[in-house]
Amino acid sequence: MAPPSAIAVEAVTDTSGVTLPDPLSASVKSNEIYGRRRKTDKSQWGVAAPSDSVNFRYHSHDHKPKAKRWDHHVSHEALIRKGNSLKQAAKYLGKPGLISLGGGLPSSEYFPFAELNLKVPTVGHFSESETKESGITITAGKHDLAQDKSIFDIATAFNYGQGSGSAQLLRWITEHTELVHNPPYSDWRCTMSIGSTSALDMALRMFTRPGDLILSEEYTFATAVETAAPMGLRVTGISMDEQGLLPDSMDHILATWDVKARGARKPHLLYTVPTGQNPTGATQSADRRREIYRVCQKHDLYILEDDPYYFLQMQPYTGPNSPDILPPSSHSEFLKSLVPSLLSIDVDGRVMRMDSFSKVLSPGSRIGWVTASEQIVHMYQMHADVSTQGPAGMAQLILWKLLDEHWGHVAYLDWLIHIRMEYTRRRDVIMQACEKYLPKEVVSWKPPMAGMFHWLRIEFRQHPDYPSKSIETIEEEIFMRVIEHGALVMRGSWFYANNEEEHDTLFFRATYAAAPAEKIEEGIRRLGEAVRAEFGLKGSNGATNG
Amino acid sequence: MAPPSAIAVEAVTDTSGVTLPDPLSASVKSNEIYGRRRKTDKSQWGVAAPSDSVNFRYHSHDHKPKAKRWDHHVSHEALIRKGNSLKQAAKYLGKPGLISLGGGLPSSEYFPFAELNLKVPTVGHFSESETKESGITITAGKHDLAQDKSIFDIATAFNYGQGSGSAQLLRWITEHTELVHNPPYSDWRCTMSIGSTSALDMALRMFTRPGDLILSEEYTFATAVETAAPMGLRVTGISMDEQGLLPDSMDHILATWDVKARGARKPHLLYTVPTGQNPTGATQSADRRREIYRVCQKHDLYILEDDPYYFLQMQPYTGPNSPDILPPSSHSEFLKSLVPSLLSIDVDGRVMRMDSFSKVLSPGSRIGWVTASEQIVHMYQMHADVSTQGPAGMAQLILWKLLDEHWGHVAYLDWLIHIRMEYTRRRDVIMQACEKYLPKEVVSWKPPMAGMFHWLRIEFRQHPDYPSKSIETIEEEIFMRVIEHGALVMRGSWFYANNEEEHDTLFFRATYAAAPAEKIEEGIRRLGEAVRAEFGLKGSNGATNG
Repeated sequence: MAPPSAIAVEAVTDTSGVTLPDPLSASVKSNEIYGRRRKTDKSQWGVAAPSDSVNFRYHSHDHKPKAKRWDHHVSHEALIRKGNSLKQAAKYLGKPGLISLGGGLPSSEYFPFAELNLKVPTVGHFSESETKESGITITAGKHDLAQDKSIFDIATAFNYGQGSGSAQLLRWITEHTELVHNPPYSDWRCTMSIGSTSALDMALRMFTRPGDLILSEEYTFATAVETAAPMGLRVTGISMDEQGLLPDSMDHILATWDVKARGARKPHLLYTVPTGQNPTGATQSADRRREIYRVCQKHDLYILEDDPYYFLQMQPYTGPNSPDILPPSSHSEFLKSLVPSLLSIDVDGRVMRMDSFSKVLSPGSRIGWVTASEQIVHMYQMHADVSTQGPAGMAQLILWKLLDEHWGHVAYLDWLIHIRMEYTRRRDVIMQACEKYLPKEVVSWKPPMAGMFHWLRIEFRQHPDYPSKSIETIEEEIFMRVIEHGALVMRGSWFYANNEEEHDTLFFRATYAAAPAEKIEEGIRRLGEAVRAEFGLKGSNGATNG
Repeated sequence: MAPPSAIAVEAVTDTSGVTLPDPLSASVKSNEIYGRRRKTDKSQWGVAAPSDSVNFRYHSHDHKPKAKRWDHHVSHEALIRKGNSLKQAAKYLGKPGLISLGGGLPSSEYFPFAELNLKVPTVGHFSESETKESGITITAGKHDLAQDKSIFDIATAFNYGQGSGSAQLLRWITEHTELVHNPPYSDWRCTMSIGSTSALDMALRMFTRPGDLILSEEYTFATAVETAAPMGLRVTGISMDEQGLLPDSMDHILATWDVKARGARKPHLLYTVPTGQNPTGATQSADRRREIYRVCQKHDLYILEDDPYYFLQMQPYTGPNSPDILPPSSHSEFLKSLVPSLLSIDVDGRVMRMDSFSKVLSPGSRIGWVTASEQIVHMYQMHADVSTQGPAGMAQLILWKLLDEHWGHVAYLDWLIHIRMEYTRRRDVIMQACEKYLPKEVVSWKPPMAGMFHWLRIEFRQHPDYPSKSIETIEEEIFMRVIEHGALVMRGSWFYANNEEEHDTLFFRATYAAAPAEKIEEGIRRLGEAVRAEFGLKGSNGATNG
């Protein structure tokens, strides 16, 4: 990809039609990516200082409508939950000269850490080998804040924090969200999560009661179903195509909902993974998203947008022997190339978007964030204060040092373009291997546009044991045969939204995220061999299709 | 304190009466603190490798009875929760030569971190200034595991993990728990939490249903009540003395429980903070613990032992002008000086103990752990897998590098002795200030033996406005007066277990954990001044009592 200095800077047009100064035009080196980060007193950055993302937004959003209120969808638990009462005392801490013997925070004197150093990539030299060669070391001292060396340090980050996460990292996250999604209502807010699995758990406690049915894609992230089930929730799957869930199908389900037959009130919650969906790899197009949103408005559904793969959107797939598409030529072009999120078309404030650093930086940070209307984010924060608390301060300090103090927003976009090109390369490897090794008589697929997963459809009706054996039995036999041949792929039935619903499709999920290129190719070769053997097909691998 | 080399090593007697090799006799430098850490293949330490604390116990516990089962106390939610189904695939990963295109883990190639360095204290030189001078730098590389440099590294820790936390840190935690608590039943297990607030939230989901009443000390950690309330739970407070909750009072409440009058089934859950309780600072003696445990057995109560202040047990308080008590002369003497935990007397396996690193290392790690019977720990892990997941791998790597690879168990005990002496010094500062500045006609206290909190009883009946004003009004007036005088202490009523129950005591909580010595003294001086003014007492500070 082009080094950042070669990337042109363009003016950005706000959704309101007003042309604003382009935040991306600021220098990479400066933290002041918006040129006008608020001048604030140091206490904003102190130990467990409260923070509100509203203070970190760059644009005015006052011209936009306010979000709707969701009291009619919110659970009793969430409605009655109050804030942490001990924080009542915090309002007196501003009194000059006050000596607090109040809060039971340990003194940083007893944190056995004097300095933290991280070797990280310099901007534009992002690969592992380049980082080893030319990476630079960034440092967090123990008392950098008190010594005016930085606004975040060990003494602050390693102490207690707030459910919202630290003001330092929340600022960066809010700015990033505004830059990428710019929600079309005025009172949007961000707050950190400890990862989207936890965010979903908390959202379900906020929006459901036992016995409820929620909607999702008919194949969905298994953990989401397993998070919901013990809470007395069931999931109803919506039919899908290669663009994910079908709005008409959702509309039909809702319009014909029979409370008695279904044994549950009409659903009011949609859980969806719009980009590079797990397991199907499907990405909803912009039009599809607008249709889905319209159906949600029609039936007053609240939307949980779980979007960890948003920045794993790849270059278009051009086929085995076509030249590669050039990388985005500017940051603005890169941002424009991304499908708009549901959040970015959410005029009602009916979306709680869950973002994650797991797929683009490191799952071991356990840092994500949610974006929603003030009402919902406030409830989320109050819940976090009495359950998960915010993400680990150690991880917050590490990410903040990299994202804010070292890279800034512009270099982070460069990093995301790097990741985009890397996943494109990996996706192309698995596509070419599939073209070469899989028997197209019984295996078909669409090239994924985003995410980590390749979804392979098997024509189970051509299996010698069909119809005497069920889909699931045939699936199991193929699965075991693939293992015999030395490869592992995931069974589609593990991802049923609802085990009790009938299915007439058979899929396997393969990932191209983890293994090196030659292993991906060999794994797919073995898969092809196993499928041929299972279906009694002739033709050795690579001979008939290569 | 004495440097570690001067500390004698003693033989340890197991509760079974068998003398075993003393784990503490191993060298400080060696990680092999038990001399016989299992030789295991490297895959045990791999990315998201499953782990079970049973593999990390040093002693055989087979001669002990098994824990009781708790199906009759466990919630429907916890009983029906299943493990993460996608982990079904993991069992095939052992097949030699298998190429996995299964799990959607990102490649560590895309973690922008090449090295992590931490400056930490050398053993025996633990103070902040010594660390600055003589601290050493410990390093985690990206691929140390693959390169046989270490068993934990960035590539592993910064990827996804298990709900139990990493095998690496879980081993250390299990060994530490065995060394300190050695539970008297055979099938005890440990699993990591993301902090005890979350652990309590998860335990309440595991053990209660809406409408339940749970028991706790009459003054209790406010966040615990606020965690419970939105789940439809109420708390009944048990009367206390300076040793915490009164077993007879608990017995009486349970023996006379009237389901109709109480509007709830008989409680089956006790939430207790046995050591340096928040807010009262009370520490249950060993005898008190045995009595509490007996009452819990009698009424079949399950116990949530929330014990973050266990290692903030201090030296005895000797009064203002007495010589200090010498620090423990050996690690064994130190361990013997600690009150036995409820876990350590738990013959039935009816205790879920919550431990935390927040008070002894850093709250910003968001790493704690729970110890309980296999049944309960297994449920906890399954829940973590679909909600919180384990603690942040970034924080796990930092703690593991310090605790296991750098310090080891023996030096960690030295660190804990250091913390003990530091808190003793701080406690003595506040005691002496209280002796000097508080009007004993209306303020009384007991020296805390553990924890961060000093609990000050106010004789509200001597207030000029008593009885025309309520306890809470008088409390509020004193609180505001103290702020006017430039100090902040916490109101006792903020810690009522149950706001609807009547109270005839008035307390304030002061902490000696956070402020430096001269601020603690000045804060208490201002408190005394304010109380005198409020009660219309004569005598300037320090003159009448000094």
